[in-house]
Formats: sequence, C-alpha cells, structure tokens
Amino acid sequence: MSGLPVSLIQALREVVGEAGLIADVERMHSYLADWRNAYRGQAALVLRPASTEQVAAVVRLCAEAGVALVPQGGNTGLCGGSIPDDLGAQVVLSLTRLNRIREVDAANETITVEAGVILQRLQEAAAEAGRLFPLSLGAEGSCTVGGNLATNAGGTAVLRYGNMRELTLGLEVVLPDGRIWDGLRALRKDNTGYDLKQLFIGSEGTLGIITAAVLKLFPAVRSLTTAWVALPSPRAAVELIGQMRGLCGDRLTGFELMSRQSLEFVLHHVSGVSDPFADAHPWYVLIELSDTQPDAPLNDMLEQGLGEAFERGVALDAVVAASEVQVRALWALREGISEAQNHEGPSLKHDISVPISRIPDFIARTDQALQQAFPGVRIVAYGHVGDGNLHYNVSKPLGAEDAAFKAQSEAIMQVIFDVTVNFAGSISAEHGLGQAKRDAARHYKDPLELELMRSIKRAFDPAGLMNPGKLL
Amino acid sequence: MSGLPVSLIQALREVVGEAGLIADVERMHSYLADWRNAYRGQAALVLRPASTEQVAAVVRLCAEAGVALVPQGGNTGLCGGSIPDDLGAQVVLSLTRLNRIREVDAANETITVEAGVILQRLQEAAAEAGRLFPLSLGAEGSCTVGGNLATNAGGTAVLRYGNMRELTLGLEVVLPDGRIWDGLRALRKDNTGYDLKQLFIGSEGTLGIITAAVLKLFPAVRSLTTAWVALPSPRAAVELIGQMRGLCGDRLTGFELMSRQSLEFVLHHVSGVSDPFADAHPWYVLIELSDTQPDAPLNDMLEQGLGEAFERGVALDAVVAASEVQVRALWALREGISEAQNHEGPSLKHDISVPISRIPDFIARTDQALQQAFPGVRIVAYGHVGDGNLHYNVSKPLGAEDAAFKAQSEAIMQVIFDVTVNFAGSISAEHGLGQAKRDAARHYKDPLELELMRSIKRAFDPAGLMNPGKLL
Repeated sequence: MSGLPVSLIQALREVVGEAGLIADVERMHSYLADWRNAYRGQAALVLRPASTEQVAAVVRLCAEAGVALVPQGGNTGLCGGSIPDDLGAQVVLSLTRLNRIREVDAANETITVEAGVILQRLQEAAAEAGRLFPLSLGAEGSCTVGGNLATNAGGTAVLRYGNMRELTLGLEVVLPDGRIWDGLRALRKDNTGYDLKQLFIGSEGTLGIITAAVLKLFPAVRSLTTAWVALPSPRAAVELIGQMRGLCGDRLTGFELMSRQSLEFVLHHVSGVSDPFADAHPWYVLIELSDTQPDAPLNDMLEQGLGEAFERGVALDAVVAASEVQVRALWALREGISEAQNHEGPSLKHDISVPISRIPDFIARTDQALQQAFPGVRIVAYGHVGDGNLHYNVSKPLGAEDAAFKAQSEAIMQVIFDVTVNFAGSISAEHGLGQAKRDAARHYKDPLELELMRSIKRAFDPAGLMNPGKLL
Repeated sequence: MSGLPVSLIQALREVVGEAGLIADVERMHSYLADWRNAYRGQAALVLRPASTEQVAAVVRLCAEAGVALVPQGGNTGLCGGSIPDDLGAQVVLSLTRLNRIREVDAANETITVEAGVILQRLQEAAAEAGRLFPLSLGAEGSCTVGGNLATNAGGTAVLRYGNMRELTLGLEVVLPDGRIWDGLRALRKDNTGYDLKQLFIGSEGTLGIITAAVLKLFPAVRSLTTAWVALPSPRAAVELIGQMRGLCGDRLTGFELMSRQSLEFVLHHVSGVSDPFADAHPWYVLIELSDTQPDAPLNDMLEQGLGEAFERGVALDAVVAASEVQVRALWALREGISEAQNHEGPSLKHDISVPISRIPDFIARTDQALQQAFPGVRIVAYGHVGDGNLHYNVSKPLGAEDAAFKAQSEAIMQVIFDVTVNFAGSISAEHGLGQAKRDAARHYKDPLELELMRSIKRAFDPAGLMNPGKLL
C-alpha cells in the first residue's frame, strides 16, 4: 500500500491515466535504484506524466497534499540525486514520457526538446539537421536531457563547448506550486531581469521540475583527428595544453589526461585494446582536434605542436591516428578506464576540479597524502585537463580485502577533498551533490554560500517538497 | 546639506577617508548624470571606497541607517541604471577606485580583476599575457568591468565568445547586509549547488555590489580579415550567416548587419569614410573571420563562401579587406552609426532581440507598422545577426520638428516592442532595464517571471536598499 490517501491516488490517476501511474512494488523496482545499484529507496508511487500539463497537475495535487516529489530521468547519475529516501512516502516523478523533440530551428541554431529525450537522440536530431549538439558523456545512450540540465552535465567536450549550462538558452519549468513557467526563449541576448533559468540548471530538482529546454546547436564537424601522447608528468600536460590551445584555438576539442595506472587497468581488463607504445610512460594525454572544414590540415597542426613539445621535453612519444578506426581505438583507451577499474575491487570515485595551473601540485600533494595515510592504494587519476577536472579515483592495495578498503572510503575521500579545497577547487566538478556529497558540501562550502542557497530554496519551495534531502 | 545624520557621515568618512567621500554639490555633479546626460539625479553623498573591505563597511553602515545605495562604474550605460533618483536621499557608490588587476593565470586562462577596472585595460592586460579577453563594445575605453557584469554586457564578439555572463567564472560580492561573499572561483566545472554568481550577473546592482571577478581568457588571434557585403534583404543575411557558420565554424567572429539608411547617415556625418561600392544596395553585412594560426587562409575561405553566395543570389557585391587599414575602414562604417544618427535629430534607440530565423519577418513587420502609424520616420536598423540582436533605431521624418517627434517616442517604442514580443523576442537584448525600460518590462514580461524575480529580490535585499527603482 502506498500510504497516500485514496482520493489523492484517484486524482493522480485521472491526470496521468493508467499508463502513467505505477503503484505495484514489482513494477516500481527499476525506478527505485540507480543504474549502479549504489542507491536504493522506497516510494509511495511512481508517476509517469506524458505532458507538461500533466506534470503541472501532478505537482499541484502533491503540493496540496504535502507529498514530496523526486524527479527522475534516465537514472544514470552517480550521486543518488534521482532516488527517493527509504521511508516510502515520496513520489517518484519520471519524466521519460516527455520525449518529444518539439522544434529544430536550423537558422537559429537551436533545438527545443522535452526533458525525457535521451541525449543520444538529441545528438542524432542535431546531426539530421546538419548541426552538432556537443554534449557527450559515457551515459549518453540512456541519460535524459532533463537530468543533464538538473545536474549541469559536463563530459569530454566542455573544453570547447562548455557545460550544459552554457548550451541552454531557455527552459520550461513546473514550479513547486504547479504553475508552469514558460521560459522557453530561443535568444542569445536577453537582459530583462534576473536570469531565472540559471537557478534551475544544476539545482537537481530542488527548485522545480524542468520539462523542456531550448538548446544551442553548432556547425557540424567535418574533420577530426586524435593523437596519443606520452608525457613525463602532469606539469607537462598543463604546458602542452597551453601550447596546443595557442596554436589550434577552438580546434582543440579534447584533451584527456590519464596516468599509467589508469592505462594498465584498461590494458588488463578491456578486450581488444593495446598500448600504442612499446615502452611504459608515467602519463598520457589524448588530444582531439576538429574543424568545420572538410580536409582541414589537422594532422599537420598536431605534428607541428608535438614537434615543439618534443624539443622542449614536454612530450616523450606520440602517435597520430591515421584513420577513423584508429581514432576510435585511442578513445577506447580513455573510455575504458571506468569499467576496467571495477575489476580491481571497489572503486572510490571522485570528481574534483582545481584551476588548470594547479593540477600538477594537486596530484603531487594528494598522491603523497594518500600513500602516507593508506600505503599501497592504487590511484587511478584521469580527466579533462582543459576543465581542471580530475576523476581522481582510488583502488585498493594489491591483495587487500574489499571490506577493509571500503571502510576507509570516507577517510580517503576526506584526504582528497581537503587538498582540493586547499587548492581552491570543487569537490564535485560535474557529478553534482545528490545524496552522495550533500554532507561533504555542508562541511566544505562557505557557510554564507549555504545560507544564500537556503534562502533561494525557501523563496521557491517553502514547503520543501521538491527532491528533499538532495543537494541542500 | 546631505540630509544624512552627521554621525553616519562621520562613520563613512572614517571608512573611505577624505579622498573617498564627496559631499560637495559641484564635485558630485559628474556622478549624477550618465555620459549622454539623458538621466540626472541627486544624491546625499558620493562614496569612492578603495577596497572590498571598504565597500563592505560602507554597505553595512548604510544598511543599518536604512540608506539606499546606487552602485556606479564608468557611467556609460544607456538605461540610467547607475543614476540616483532626484530626491537626494540616495548614496552613489562609485567602484572606480577598485581598479586592481589582482592576478593573471595564463595556464588557467583566467584573469582576476576588480570591478572598477576599465574594459580596455582588461583587454590590454590579457594581450600582455599573450591572451584575448574578447568582450568588445563602443564604450570600452571608459566602461568598467563591474558595469559589464551588472548589465551582462554584449557587443560585437558575442557570436563567438558569448556575453559577459559566459566569460565569468567567479565573483566577489558585497551582500546587502555588508557581508562579503567570496565566490572568486577560477573553475570551469563546479557543481556543488546553486550557481549564485548567475544571479548577480545582469542584476544591475539590485542584489548586491560586485567588487571583483574571475574572467576567462582565450588564445590570442593571429589572423583576421573582414569583408563588406551588399545584400538584397535581411533574409539574405540570415542565409549568409548560416552558410558562413557552416563553412568557417568558430572562425566567424563578427557578422554585423546594417541598412542602407544606416550607411547613408554614416556617409553624411562621419569624416574620412566612403561607400565601398559605386552603387547603392538595400542592406550590408560586415563579416569578420579570425584564427589563432598566423597566416590562416581566411581570405580564401571568405572568397569561397561569398562565391557560393553570389551564385545563389544571396550576395550582390562584396569587398574583402586587403590590409589592416582596410579592416579598420570597414569597421568604421559600422561603428559610426550611433554617432551619425545623433546629427539627424533625436535618436530613438532600441535594443531588441528575436530568434535569428525571425529577423527578416521582424524587420518587415515593424517597418510596415511604423510607416503606417508614423509616416516618413527614418528607420536605422543595424545589429548583430548572430545574436538576433537589432538596434532598431528611429529618426524623425525629414523636416519634422524635434519636439513633435520626441512626443511620439513612447508610441513608437510600443509599436516596436509589441512586434518584438509577438516574435518571442526580448525588449532589451544587451542594454538592461535600468530606469529606462523598467516599466516596459513590467508591461511585457510574464507576471509569473516578475513574481519570481521579486521573490529573489526579497530573499537577498529585504529592505530594498540596493539600487531601488532600477530593473524591478
């Protein structure tokens, strides 16, 4: 039984129809845990409205009844932001049936999509219009636009195109009282007051329910190349990205760092990959250049840049992809890390950012602090140099027990976050806070900033019914 | 006499020193009107603090005494946002002494500057570090970073680099109660809660006083070219920008439209300029391409694009700049419009935006409506096609009286704004609201959006002492 009044359930059923209401525990199951099964909760109901108006009616009914809502997209988040608590009184509001692409305006370089559209489908719709939607991340085959907006998603193309926030021109939002705010503007300049959409982007469903968005499109990419480069140190990576940015400008669309340890995990556990070099090197970067011009001389540019890097000792070895197959093979090394690490026992995943210039000192300081406190842990550091964003993950020492290592996870996280904050960084660069990092944020963030956030929360959602227990 | 308690004046003097307090009416004069002398007010005092701590102390003292503050930068705004009302009870807070460049971090591609730094000095500091700070607008020699942030300034490079909002990574803000929020983060990814800086950007000083910012830098431009193209219609301009974006991608850094009427005013009133073509054409665009590569083949690319445009009848004639002198000469035609129009009697200036795809219909509809209601008015339409942003200005009919024309200004504005809103546009694309458009915003904006804005204002500034009478 759901614990909700029968009259409320009946009213909700009238809004969303039989197909939109799930009260059966078996059928609710997949909505109550994230894809990794790291977070699991209980819910009174799962609702699947099929339109903005239905979302609005649901929110209004729940607001009147004082029932809390947990908005949910593709459920691919890493911080439990879309999973209800375990008391069973919250209602999960799945947006996946709001999956229409409402409009493509090629001349305005915009696309208007509903919250439940899968990211990959959005990318494909852009491509069909001869355009690029650049947001790209591991979960793109199942994550939704609404989730990307609610968490201000990042990924590998932020270096050139920005986070989801920078890709958004307008939003449609159902407010906590059930009114619909139509902020679906397709404008690149609009200075007529506070930019309200910015509050909802990255707010993880705590201020309202995003139902649709106007997003920016870009010219299609017609040339692309990648290189795999061995480096002596993270400092060399920072030098190299500065040099390549100066040389290539906006053609530099990817610059991914990974440690030897990261590569070794991939080489051990992912099938069909191989080390591009005969010798082992301490660090690597994957460089991607792209251009709107067909047959742009990107390889020449790469070779010029790498030539200079060799002379200055910044690069130790390099291979430039000679075909699309090789491009994919090099990216497979980078993209295999997360999966490979899972084969080495529990993965403690962190997602920090620091100023790009401080990456080398951050890595040196954190490595040292961890090895001192937890001898033998294996550090799987990789990430997006151009964003200052490192997935500074940790695996257990060889031969250690999983349980003993897991018991240290909080303490390890604290070491990493302490150094991060010391370097004026962020403890969550692109994954958000959700349930996972809410308490850490309380600890590490400026109390004044938390106070301002709470005052906004009170102004928008005084009853506290929007995704309670997340973010704040 | 200032009307303020002597004890308060004494306390303020102790904070800012003799050099930072102006009570003399003569010496206050230049702080009480904007550069065009379109808005003039009165003030109890002008304060010129020299540090963030002094700003904080001033704000705290004024908050305790219930005295309203009007923050002011270079005073180059067009909407009276930095001018006090005429009751003489408000205090003007000039930020121009906060003019330090605190840090340039070339490896992080960021610069940290105080609010009073002149935009041009910021551009120069970036250039000295081998980088580009791309914001560029007419007033750059006297406007300040604080004003650029408070109004989310735009200009001619938004097409490629975005508005001031997109160029900002972090802010330092003195809150209405005098506390300092240190949000000076230099991070490209940070998802640890609501993005508070977004509220202050574009809030025109109504939520707090921005005292410093971390801004993005970009690779220096090493090749640049421009073309001047004659077109049959605004529709051709929209077609041409789509084609050039697809061809050139991010190299397209300027695409400025102007009508024949605009050019004629420039040719009549600006010295040292000439029509690039022997024949008159109805519309023109100035195209700018730039690249980080020295000797990039930009002219080849322009000629390829224009060749296709001629074939399709989109372009009627074109000239490509052969030297830096010619580049400047072409830009002079565009940049002379505002000054030239002032010689033709009162200029009714508007700053609207619509989706790029709707520019042609917007211009046709507005031209028709204006000529029907106000026969003979001369429409000076120009602007940034890539931003959908038109300065759709109006001059009096030939031979008409200034006063009679001025008396129609509200009615003319209403015609233009009605069409703008009909085309899902904005009545203020880049100039903000200030005093000038506050009432129009009340009329044209969604009441729900105004309500949300007011709830934010109440949450941050419950006493309403931050730049009252502006924006909201």
